[in-house]
Amino acid sequence: MEGRRVIGWAARDVSAHLSPYSFTLRKTGPEDVVLKVLYCGVDHTDLHQMRGELMPINYPLVPGHEVVGEVVEVGSEVNKFKLGDKVGVGCLVSSCGKCLSCNSNNEQYCNQRVFTYGAVNKDGTPTHGGFSSAMVVHQKFVVQIPEKLAPEQAAPLLCAGVTAYSPLKQFNNSDKAIKAGILGLGGVGHLAVLIAKAMGHHVTVISSSEKKKVEALEHLHADAFLVSSNAAEMEGAAASLDYILDTVPAFHSLEPYISLLKAGGKLIFVGVSTKPLHFNNDELILGNKSLTGSFIGSMEETQEILDFWAEKGLSTMIEVVKMDYINKAFERLERNDVRYRFVLEVAGSNLE
Amino acid sequence: MEGRRVIGWAARDVSAHLSPYSFTLRKTGPEDVVLKVLYCGVDHTDLHQMRGELMPINYPLVPGHEVVGEVVEVGSEVNKFKLGDKVGVGCLVSSCGKCLSCNSNNEQYCNQRVFTYGAVNKDGTPTHGGFSSAMVVHQKFVVQIPEKLAPEQAAPLLCAGVTAYSPLKQFNNSDKAIKAGILGLGGVGHLAVLIAKAMGHHVTVISSSEKKKVEALEHLHADAFLVSSNAAEMEGAAASLDYILDTVPAFHSLEPYISLLKAGGKLIFVGVSTKPLHFNNDELILGNKSLTGSFIGSMEETQEILDFWAEKGLSTMIEVVKMDYINKAFERLERNDVRYRFVLEVAGSNLE
Repeated sequence: MEGRRVIGWAARDVSAHLSPYSFTLRKTGPEDVVLKVLYCGVDHTDLHQMRGELMPINYPLVPGHEVVGEVVEVGSEVNKFKLGDKVGVGCLVSSCGKCLSCNSNNEQYCNQRVFTYGAVNKDGTPTHGGFSSAMVVHQKFVVQIPEKLAPEQAAPLLCAGVTAYSPLKQFNNSDKAIKAGILGLGGVGHLAVLIAKAMGHHVTVISSSEKKKVEALEHLHADAFLVSSNAAEMEGAAASLDYILDTVPAFHSLEPYISLLKAGGKLIFVGVSTKPLHFNNDELILGNKSLTGSFIGSMEETQEILDFWAEKGLSTMIEVVKMDYINKAFERLERNDVRYRFVLEVAGSNLE
Repeated sequence: MEGRRVIGWAARDVSAHLSPYSFTLRKTGPEDVVLKVLYCGVDHTDLHQMRGELMPINYPLVPGHEVVGEVVEVGSEVNKFKLGDKVGVGCLVSSCGKCLSCNSNNEQYCNQRVFTYGAVNKDGTPTHGGFSSAMVVHQKFVVQIPEKLAPEQAAPLLCAGVTAYSPLKQFNNSDKAIKAGILGLGGVGHLAVLIAKAMGHHVTVISSSEKKKVEALEHLHADAFLVSSNAAEMEGAAASLDYILDTVPAFHSLEPYISLLKAGGKLIFVGVSTKPLHFNNDELILGNKSLTGSFIGSMEETQEILDFWAEKGLSTMIEVVKMDYINKAFERLERNDVRYRFVLEVAGSNLE
């Protein structure tokens, strides 16, 4: 039996212009879940992928890796989900299942991980993302959307949210008062502020200018705001933070941020710099400090952030748009003209 | 009452030539211990300090920070030690006692830590090290030498040993089989191999040439030896190590070593590079890897490594020399002509 015929929106080349594209899903295997896509988050990475800036791309490419849908079919051995369940799919749809990372439920670090789109399924078919009427995904890579959570609210948590949650989780339920720094206030940064606050941390937003001060303090309820170019402010905050989540996806000097860390503190990268970064290792040695990195999160952690979000009653700041707005949305995203994330209303759009 | 008159060997200027020097110890305070120095380890750092390469130095300077002695006097409130006890003093003789680091028994990270020599006591007198007939030290910064341990054997543990032990301790008694890398086989490196082996780790020594292969495998009983310039060997060991203790005190490329780490692995610096080091942060992000640093160890950990060493029945490889050999010893140390550490027999030397 052939898979379902679906309609997605695809990029045809590096211009990254999206338009309707009809294709066939792979056959539903015994452990697969078929979901009708309801909403899908729009991420900066989508733009890089469509333009082939991260890896070689076989076009047409249907992006979308913050997918919320409703289960419309399940394989014979699916035990985690039933028809009608609201479910989510993030950045990954497969991994080897046998390596150290997979065995420790950290499949995001498996070196045979398969990305939700732009990659190749085990059967050789290309993977396509959530800018599509439906998807078929192995149940291991599907999470349950909590009932208390509106589906469009859940979308940004499936990549940006878990990217912030995974490295912050180690500081949750700490027996000491944690002082957090969030560097950069974009898609991941704004969720990180909300998550760190909900974990009870004292949160300082660090930014290159005063521009986001009101946003940080009044809308996101951060406790403090530091302008990184203000030497006196930075000096006053020296050695005060337990961790800094560094979301800056570009080259930047690390010294000012390492100085903000307490002895034992961690600078955690989640944004990729295309150029090498520099540091003086005596600053790490004399202060027992660490530079570390974190990549999205595991499926277990993806479920955890959804449950955490629902339990804490948090809400994401999103702008919901229809599919025919997507090219415009990417234009605005590129100039940071969104507070803080576009979510596509896929099921509510005319995809033809 | 004045303090005791003692004889040490001091550097008078940046030439770092050592010769006899008579001086007065500070008065014994209520919590101070006076020790007659029996042995003192000789470290590369001594050379840098005497030459004023690490910080401005007030000469004369009496070095020595791996000091083993016998208690000959105790202040009225000393409760940890009694006359005749064999004791040790390492790199530090004081700290503020109030900061976060001090309060968590990590006084080595206190930013008011006072070094054993070349620094200034709270009373304004200069600190002098173990190349001296006696020392006076607050009991907090004195450790007990276990009875089973020969005093000359204990000396290298008080700086080099605890420098290796402190960062490795987190991997002791792990519930998984730990694969360790030791980069550089000098004073700290050779002790690190012995400690990691005694912790049950699978130990790979990583070196720039084949030269130390026999040493590593046959004398130190490492499990494997990798030549960092051998691309095929390095490739074969990719993603295999839980940690690498990096003892290299100079600029070096990090990429080959980051590649050796498993997902979640740590590269731990204990040697200071005088130039900034570089890395690609995507390697940390996609592999959840860390670059971190560790500085000597706490007083608690200094006691622990002594007890660990005695309990495991380990032995340090040392060359015991008299005080009149010290200038020659530093010459040989500088060209790495010692296996692996000189220990000065202070009490057995004519200091005049």
